[in-house]
Amino acid sequence: MTPSKTSAGRFFEDFEVGQTIAHPTPRTITSGDRALVMALYPIRHALFSSDEFARQCGLREAPLEDFAVFHFVFGRTVPDISINAVANLGYAGVRFRRMVFVGDTISASSEVIGVKENSSGKTGIVWVRTTGVNQHQAPVIEFTRWVMVTKRHPGQRSGISQIPDIPASLAASDLETEAGLDYCRYRFAEAGETHCWSSYEAGETIDHRQGVTVEEAEHMMATRLWQNPARVHFDATLREDGRRLVYGGHVISMARALSFYGLANAQPVLGVNSGSHVGPCFAGTTIHAWSRILERCDSAAPGAASLRIRTIATNCQLADFPEQADPAVTLLDLDYWALVPTGHA
Amino acid sequence: MTPSKTSAGRFFEDFEVGQTIAHPTPRTITSGDRALVMALYPIRHALFSSDEFARQCGLREAPLEDFAVFHFVFGRTVPDISINAVANLGYAGVRFRRMVFVGDTISASSEVIGVKENSSGKTGIVWVRTTGVNQHQAPVIEFTRWVMVTKRHPGQRSGISQIPDIPASLAASDLETEAGLDYCRYRFAEAGETHCWSSYEAGETIDHRQGVTVEEAEHMMATRLWQNPARVHFDATLREDGRRLVYGGHVISMARALSFYGLANAQPVLGVNSGSHVGPCFAGTTIHAWSRILERCDSAAPGAASLRIRTIATNCQLADFPEQADPAVTLLDLDYWALVPTGHA
Amino acid sequence: MTPSKTSAGRFFEDFEVGQTIAHPTPRTITSGDRALVMALYPIRHALFSSDEFARQCGLREAPLEDFAVFHFVFGRTVPDISINAVANLGYAGVRFRRMVFVGDTISASSEVIGVKENSSGKTGIVWVRTTGVNQHQAPVIEFTRWVMVTKRHPGQRSGISQIPDIPASLAASDLETEAGLDYCRYRFAEAGETHCWSSYEAGETIDHRQGVTVEEAEHMMATRLWQNPARVHFDATLREDGRRLVYGGHVISMARALSFYGLANAQPVLGVNSGSHVGPCFAGTTIHAWSRILERCDSAAPGAASLRIRTIATNCQLADFPEQADPAVTLLDLDYWALVPTGHA
Repeated sequence: MTPSKTSAGRFFEDFEVGQTIAHPTPRTITSGDRALVMALYPIRHALFSSDEFARQCGLREAPLEDFAVFHFVFGRTVPDISINAVANLGYAGVRFRRMVFVGDTISASSEVIGVKENSSGKTGIVWVRTTGVNQHQAPVIEFTRWVMVTKRHPGQRSGISQIPDIPASLAASDLETEAGLDYCRYRFAEAGETHCWSSYEAGETIDHRQGVTVEEAEHMMATRLWQNPARVHFDATLREDGRRLVYGGHVISMARALSFYGLANAQPVLGVNSGSHVGPCFAGTTIHAWSRILERCDSAAPGAASLRIRTIATNCQLADFPEQADPAVTLLDLDYWALVPTGHA
Repeated sequence: MTPSKTSAGRFFEDFEVGQTIAHPTPRTITSGDRALVMALYPIRHALFSSDEFARQCGLREAPLEDFAVFHFVFGRTVPDISINAVANLGYAGVRFRRMVFVGDTISASSEVIGVKENSSGKTGIVWVRTTGVNQHQAPVIEFTRWVMVTKRHPGQRSGISQIPDIPASLAASDLETEAGLDYCRYRFAEAGETHCWSSYEAGETIDHRQGVTVEEAEHMMATRLWQNPARVHFDATLREDGRRLVYGGHVISMARALSFYGLANAQPVLGVNSGSHVGPCFAGTTIHAWSRILERCDSAAPGAASLRIRTIATNCQLADFPEQADPAVTLLDLDYWALVPTGHA
Repeated sequence: MTPSKTSAGRFFEDFEVGQTIAHPTPRTITSGDRALVMALYPIRHALFSSDEFARQCGLREAPLEDFAVFHFVFGRTVPDISINAVANLGYAGVRFRRMVFVGDTISASSEVIGVKENSSGKTGIVWVRTTGVNQHQAPVIEFTRWVMVTKRHPGQRSGISQIPDIPASLAASDLETEAGLDYCRYRFAEAGETHCWSSYEAGETIDHRQGVTVEEAEHMMATRLWQNPARVHFDATLREDGRRLVYGGHVISMARALSFYGLANAQPVLGVNSGSHVGPCFAGTTIHAWSRILERCDSAAPGAASLRIRTIATNCQLADFPEQADPAVTLLDLDYWALVPTGHA
């Protein structure tokens, strides 16, 4: 008998610091992907909705929505990095380096930057730095993520512990803006809100007011679109409770889209300092979001500056910004930078 | 503390006759939108299915399906007009003025044409005339709709009552056909039925025979595609019964698609005289439809003439055309004009 | 009263051997269709995912996924062939003759090649040979299928029995490969697995390991995308058990996509020898798949050869390849040919 052609994927022991993994399945982005992203998430940010608005901002057409870029690149890494993951523990240092347009083909590779066996001896943590590139090998996104991965041989203890240094946030100099992006003639009336960069104050909180209930068909279609094959999102027989776990990125995109209300001009996202899935999400959950403005910062793009925003997604509507993350309520804690027009011309 | 950046939207008191509202969020139509419309509705009308068929009819390619144009424009108006609406009361005078093609960017504005406080003092009715334009500012659609809107200060009575004159139907001269549209070489065999304009008689009824059961994921994806953010369609925690209300336009598009059977050659829609959502629709409802031919009329397009059709959608299958609207059964009552080839060449 | 404009469709008595039926509703394929196919099925085959990978293989861009071509052509035939079908009994001789690219318009016609009244006198079997063509009238696919169709007059017995000769499998000479397709520089690393044609042995079995639970919204969106109007897939009130029957082709596409694991380089599909839906599929079913390599064969494409594969889809996870089809467990039994790169350059 020939051994099965199906791979069981990498276990904790298969990761080594310094190793670089070129992920398979390049993916060409089509206008169909743009439309599906709009159908799956309540996106209203004008930069992603209208070619005309994007042209007015110096782009050749509306780009693929930022977190869709993240999901497409993340999806490529799953078979190599997290197919045997018990949990996605967090993200950091997500830098959006170049926009992705229809016709671009995205590929990804990851470097292992940390490994640490857990004291249980059954699992370990793996840190990777992933880079997504377009068909010209130009980076479109970079991010660090860490996952808890099952060991191939749970009994054997190795004592491996190489924990990488993860900056708590991106530096202002890490934030790049697309070549040509210019907010000097930004059309606030088309974008939907009048708030500009100087309207926001550090510490200010925003109730995004909207709620959206998650459906099985929707989170599966989204996760499939990104070609993320983690079986726990698709197979209702896998967990003992018969539920499919919603891909954490689905919550990120829902929360980001809901955050339009009060942050309509916070577009595009330039980077994510850190992100964590505080509690799991299942179909039937109604996602709500609050944001807090953390910092303000300059930007190289004409007419624009940056806001550092913390967006918290919860499974119920809260009266105030949730200061303490409560795993029974909080789904997502996301700390990111977005570009905002500095003022009205 | 800075006041929240999120707007609660307009209340009844915020509308004034003569006011013009430019709606935000221009939307570029992609071929992805065309495909999603086909996946969400059982559309078989050849003009929207095939570029080759459309070219044979004088168009440069298949246009965006007519009611999708309506939904995209309607969606733009919701944040300004109906975000605090208790009910969508009706539509009238819907004129399809120009077709929308892939690459076009749609924007919308509305003029307030009527306001009337309700005797309860809690709500009022607002009438608006909405115009959708493409990137050249050329009108693609115009329609009147009226909604019942919550008052900001329910106790105070103003006695405001400016009720507009709404024609019961469009005049024949209001119906426009796309420049170049020519049905002299219309391919009946490709369209799927042999019935031409002269085959239909006023008074004739048609059982469309098909039924389609509505799903949460489908109506939400559709409503999101139109960027219609009315929360009641998405948030299962909003109504006391835990149900999400299906966007009325979803029922219009389902009924129109079902009406293919017996009306395969009634394409495109030229205008809607009136439309009302007689009863609400929820996921799980199975939509059926009957139509009656009301009138026949000439058209400026070569080889084509117009039929006035009344299509009734119900939540169960009926043995006959429903003469009386019954809110327990009827979902939609739509009175519209469609173009039909006059005869076989 | 004019007779209803709605057709009840063809019954058994309406089919005659030698008759050719030109099916209506030509369908232009857009990049939106390509994206939807990726969202609806967990497709990871690089040839359909990446324009760059496809170009490296000699194509001008990534084509429409093979079984999507089958579904689009099948969908066109339903109103004429199987709208009164009790059951889809089987497929055979499916030849993929030319790839379909974005912008192509697909039409279909069928020749009746067999009719046989059943002994009950209530139904009969109809065999058709269907050809799908593009806008240049060049064949893209051909297949034979047979369906059990209701009789218009169940009481009257005709004794009709003209059973066609259906080859058990395609001959190697029936398999065509797209002009220009060349696997001499095939990129295994991008495709995701290293197995080449010589790695596979006849008799070898592969557990595809993945499972995917079917949703109502997904199978309906897919079936609508193909414009397959068979009511039993959409209307929950039609069957006594209140369930919508999943279009059999949905199971084919799920099983094919799951078979990526272990058969990542088996792309594209060249032909289907035979296929049968052993048991029905409903929403909530979790589809799993096993494959067995049946034969190996040469191919005209440089650097490529063919594998004959039998893929069995089941409604639960099995420990071994299911030798016996069990209607309580087996959903699909598919015997097909796929192209595989012969070896590493």
